[in-house]
Amino acid sequence: MVKVGIVGASGYTSSELLRFLMCHPGELKIEMVTSESYPGQRVDRIMPNLRGLIDLEFEPLEIEALGNRVDVIVLAVPHKVAMSYVPEILKQGLRVIDFSADYRLDDPDMYQGWYHVEHSDPEWLERAVYGLPELYRNEIRKAELVANPGCYPTSAILPTLPLLARDLVEPSSIIIDSKSGISGAGRTPSATTHYPNRESNFMAYNIGTHRHTPEIEQELSKIAGEAIRVTFTPHIAPMTRGILSTLYFQLKAEISTESLTAIYSKFYEKGPFVRVLDPGEYPQTKAVAGTNYCDIGLEVDVRTDRVVVMAAIDNLGKGASGAVVQNLNVMFGLDETAGLRIPGMMP
Amino acid sequence: MVKVGIVGASGYTSSELLRFLMCHPGELKIEMVTSESYPGQRVDRIMPNLRGLIDLEFEPLEIEALGNRVDVIVLAVPHKVAMSYVPEILKQGLRVIDFSADYRLDDPDMYQGWYHVEHSDPEWLERAVYGLPELYRNEIRKAELVANPGCYPTSAILPTLPLLARDLVEPSSIIIDSKSGISGAGRTPSATTHYPNRESNFMAYNIGTHRHTPEIEQELSKIAGEAIRVTFTPHIAPMTRGILSTLYFQLKAEISTESLTAIYSKFYEKGPFVRVLDPGEYPQTKAVAGTNYCDIGLEVDVRTDRVVVMAAIDNLGKGASGAVVQNLNVMFGLDETAGLRIPGMMP
Amino acid sequence: MVKVGIVGASGYTSSELLRFLMCHPGELKIEMVTSESYPGQRVDRIMPNLRGLIDLEFEPLEIEALGNRVDVIVLAVPHKVAMSYVPEILKQGLRVIDFSADYRLDDPDMYQGWYHVEHSDPEWLERAVYGLPELYRNEIRKAELVANPGCYPTSAILPTLPLLARDLVEPSSIIIDSKSGISGAGRTPSATTHYPNRESNFMAYNIGTHRHTPEIEQELSKIAGEAIRVTFTPHIAPMTRGILSTLYFQLKAEISTESLTAIYSKFYEKGPFVRVLDPGEYPQTKAVAGTNYCDIGLEVDVRTDRVVVMAAIDNLGKGASGAVVQNLNVMFGLDETAGLRIPGMMP
Amino acid sequence: MVKVGIVGASGYTSSELLRFLMCHPGELKIEMVTSESYPGQRVDRIMPNLRGLIDLEFEPLEIEALGNRVDVIVLAVPHKVAMSYVPEILKQGLRVIDFSADYRLDDPDMYQGWYHVEHSDPEWLERAVYGLPELYRNEIRKAELVANPGCYPTSAILPTLPLLARDLVEPSSIIIDSKSGISGAGRTPSATTHYPNRESNFMAYNIGTHRHTPEIEQELSKIAGEAIRVTFTPHIAPMTRGILSTLYFQLKAEISTESLTAIYSKFYEKGPFVRVLDPGEYPQTKAVAGTNYCDIGLEVDVRTDRVVVMAAIDNLGKGASGAVVQNLNVMFGLDETAGLRIPGMMP
Repeated sequence: MVKVGIVGASGYTSSELLRFLMCHPGELKIEMVTSESYPGQRVDRIMPNLRGLIDLEFEPLEIEALGNRVDVIVLAVPHKVAMSYVPEILKQGLRVIDFSADYRLDDPDMYQGWYHVEHSDPEWLERAVYGLPELYRNEIRKAELVANPGCYPTSAILPTLPLLARDLVEPSSIIIDSKSGISGAGRTPSATTHYPNRESNFMAYNIGTHRHTPEIEQELSKIAGEAIRVTFTPHIAPMTRGILSTLYFQLKAEISTESLTAIYSKFYEKGPFVRVLDPGEYPQTKAVAGTNYCDIGLEVDVRTDRVVVMAAIDNLGKGASGAVVQNLNVMFGLDETAGLRIPGMMP
Repeated sequence: MVKVGIVGASGYTSSELLRFLMCHPGELKIEMVTSESYPGQRVDRIMPNLRGLIDLEFEPLEIEALGNRVDVIVLAVPHKVAMSYVPEILKQGLRVIDFSADYRLDDPDMYQGWYHVEHSDPEWLERAVYGLPELYRNEIRKAELVANPGCYPTSAILPTLPLLARDLVEPSSIIIDSKSGISGAGRTPSATTHYPNRESNFMAYNIGTHRHTPEIEQELSKIAGEAIRVTFTPHIAPMTRGILSTLYFQLKAEISTESLTAIYSKFYEKGPFVRVLDPGEYPQTKAVAGTNYCDIGLEVDVRTDRVVVMAAIDNLGKGASGAVVQNLNVMFGLDETAGLRIPGMMP
Repeated sequence: MVKVGIVGASGYTSSELLRFLMCHPGELKIEMVTSESYPGQRVDRIMPNLRGLIDLEFEPLEIEALGNRVDVIVLAVPHKVAMSYVPEILKQGLRVIDFSADYRLDDPDMYQGWYHVEHSDPEWLERAVYGLPELYRNEIRKAELVANPGCYPTSAILPTLPLLARDLVEPSSIIIDSKSGISGAGRTPSATTHYPNRESNFMAYNIGTHRHTPEIEQELSKIAGEAIRVTFTPHIAPMTRGILSTLYFQLKAEISTESLTAIYSKFYEKGPFVRVLDPGEYPQTKAVAGTNYCDIGLEVDVRTDRVVVMAAIDNLGKGASGAVVQNLNVMFGLDETAGLRIPGMMP
Repeated sequence: MVKVGIVGASGYTSSELLRFLMCHPGELKIEMVTSESYPGQRVDRIMPNLRGLIDLEFEPLEIEALGNRVDVIVLAVPHKVAMSYVPEILKQGLRVIDFSADYRLDDPDMYQGWYHVEHSDPEWLERAVYGLPELYRNEIRKAELVANPGCYPTSAILPTLPLLARDLVEPSSIIIDSKSGISGAGRTPSATTHYPNRESNFMAYNIGTHRHTPEIEQELSKIAGEAIRVTFTPHIAPMTRGILSTLYFQLKAEISTESLTAIYSKFYEKGPFVRVLDPGEYPQTKAVAGTNYCDIGLEVDVRTDRVVVMAAIDNLGKGASGAVVQNLNVMFGLDETAGLRIPGMMP
């Protein structure tokens, strides 16, 4: 029995994590949840979907006293805050999965460049493992600190992996056009998340400046063995959950949709949560809603020697909390799919 | 191990039933699914959310050959068709849960009055049990034929039960104003379900003529011990899932919101899927999305001596397929909550 | 040429008012708009739908200097603030239409009871005219101060008027079940308007305590000639615009849907913005989106001697800004329909 | 007074055209509307938003008798049908605007290649003018037959024009990622437009095979002076109206967002319906809902030497019926903006 604590547990990623863990067959136990916003309140009063299913109250955080109570901390606090907590928690012999961006980039200068603050914990930054099991399963197994990937990066890296690993496309040609649901903006109301502003509305934001860009480039560069820069355009779509990323690549040589699909299927035959669709099938966000799956489809555009690859994830599932459960399973030697073979809610 | 067959399995209620059964700990096994629309096709190609999670193909229906293969048939065919299948299936010694309206009304004349066709199977009509465990748990346990309730009736009966059972309201005063998601109209496209017609749109339909009316009145009359007529107004809301029913009752005597809530809580303390909210809390459809729960809240309007009671269900969950699983659990002596203590997907 | 100033012009009701006035044939001119939030900014940068269509900047409010610049002020500030501005503006000889609730109730005690603050301007409260032309066309014509009605009250009073005026229903039986779009909550983000909280979600709020209740009761009581109390349940629907109110009345005598529809048609044959639908037609919110129309349909429930009447309005149109234009037209002797015979945007 | 007839008038493009024409100051008069689906029925019973605003019935089509009644026919019938009507109508001396794709491509072989049917009217195909006034204002002025552009092409050509005209980008680098509302699929219900299939769902379709591709390539090739092939990926977004196209171009030389925006502003300073946003502003579909505007914004991605250009239109406005009104204005010598300076409905 692995005892799990969640620090900063009142946001969407935490409520989704609690939902996933309730479907877990039992080796993972939610031992404690902390919240600065709702200390002393029952979890199921703040998250009405959990009503009657969880008998816990939010606790105030006593960071020095975590060691005796749990085996692993899932940290769900904002970036900058995370790196101020992590060393203290690790010191107590706990393992940590961090939802924030603080430990995702290898290079503290790159962190500073994109986040406009100096990284306060370069030692652990160096030792942290990027929590994408499809890339780092072995490292995650023994990691003390796992940096859970961003939602956009997961939706961009998984569909790109086979192309770069097989040297099929021009690394400089990568364009990522992503469409995200609004829950990605979190639980705090703002003009961006105001219903009348978003309903029936569609727009891009942060072109060329989104902070997930360096994370995508870092991982793709490692696979390609050369420095890669991508054009990444995030959009906000009128829906709560889901990301569909549409990626464009210049092919190095002619290949058919069928052959390329076969390469993807082979590549991901072991990866339990990447589902490669048949030629002619395109992924849709609703088919993965509430799950840890990433659905991938592709189409070769023979007229322009490009391939268009699409990946659908739930930003709160494979893009966040599902990935945490997958990482927990890997870290603690459980079946990697435990609690995660749940169908999406459709329609 | 109970072997379950689903006849007419390509609609929303069946895909939702498959989803619930995949979360079932194991005593219920999906043995076969039939479909006239997709014979020979893999289930997970028609229902993309189930991809990789179910290894079955739709079969054509051979109604005489069901007996050897399964223990129970869930019948998901239109009314009129259902009553032409049921006797044949029961003859083979199988038990049946019927999604349709064919066996819900006690009186064949009432059936004919509302459905404009003579009931062809009055014998089984008389023996069928109305599949609301909150009312008929003991009868369902040994029933050969269970008529699964309509979605609106479930959302109307559960919040009315305590008031009539405790003789707190005027039986002639009941008004039911229901708001439903669009999946209630099923999988077949029509002008009613056309996205541009429904998005950002709200309207009522079938006032005073909806076929769920007699079902509601039959069950409420039995509880009240007198013939009850209700005003029932269904509406269609711009959302896929969920029913919120708002019910109005004239109180027989003064009572506070707190006292009445306490009566509800006591009444449903044993019913595992009715969650009575605290005074001041109102149910919302999203908190029960994808679940078998019915959330109930109420408010006494002291200025008019009325009580307003609200019930939220998922029309495909407690209003359809969740109820089937609950009935299967009861019929086969399993834990009534097996596979059903799943949190709703929220946000 | 009537010169119009809008005070507090950055909210939804003001942007909608500007939209309506741009379609006005020309006798009404937007002379100035004030905003505390955006002083000095171009209106069409804050309201991107107006881009290139209006050449004005938001001004800071100088309340003593309004008199020289405009003929009428539309006041779009919160209640309590409104009553602190109104006397000063009227003193300058301007006429005023007030969006807020401050001058809608006749009785200062009732105002204090529902708004929990003493009314600071009882003199003008007594002289203010309730801005529903269907009731007070003649009074509005010469009014110095018009209190623009609330959105729910408009959707409740118009469908009730013929029934009370013709003494067809029991005044004590009135139940109003209203469903509103989210723009009714205004431009300021909150948990209530947070997209992930509202999408695919439906719930009631403020049962028996909504501040539009006394406004509805005041006007219905005047028509009935007796004190009326109603049960009013507002709901929030997953859509931006529109209110559908479903009203329930106990009939005093038997009448058919057709006869009652004929009575409504006759009653509103002169009222240019109430459209009575044919028997069997039900109003839908999208048919009135962006307009000043109120669509009314009804159905007699012969089984229970009740009549169900439905009214659809745009909460920002006939429920707010369309009504202001209609009132401006009446106040300044223009064609009452000028600028308002605009079709709704559908689909 | 120009008398306008609409043939095939019961679809969304026609109802939207009627809506626009009702806001027209008067030189354009709707003289007749035909419909095979609703002959003899009042227009405002089929299109409830027009109730009380139009006093016409749908007529059956008598194609030989059009000449006496109107000056211009707007043809709103499917492709293939259109080219069977057009010669007959033109023969009667009427002018024609065709909503379909039948007269948009210059080359009958290309038509046959993409539409899989031989073009039956190559003579008129050659004489037809592509109805994008931003490109062909002078030709439209005297055209007998105007082919109204497709919605996607309008959203792709307008933002590309300045770049190709000024030779700023690599013509072979163009990638168009378009997101469309569901009304683009028309009024006929299908699985694609079924509300539960689309709500909260996002997916691509017809990659590399969409029939708007040759139309885009034809017009861009003419501007560039060389044959251009583009990668075009249409997506379907969970909203009724609007297209946001995000376009990617490789820059030939370094340029700043500010300088490039200035080039666009200069380029479109005369085009009354293209609104170039300020640097840092991005277009959103809701700001153009119900209008004939095309909002364009751009961002240079200095890290990859690409420029990302976004264009927002209403697929039923500038993408269809607004464009028809603009073309009618140009064809008949009216103010090009007459009836079209209408603000979008927002929120």
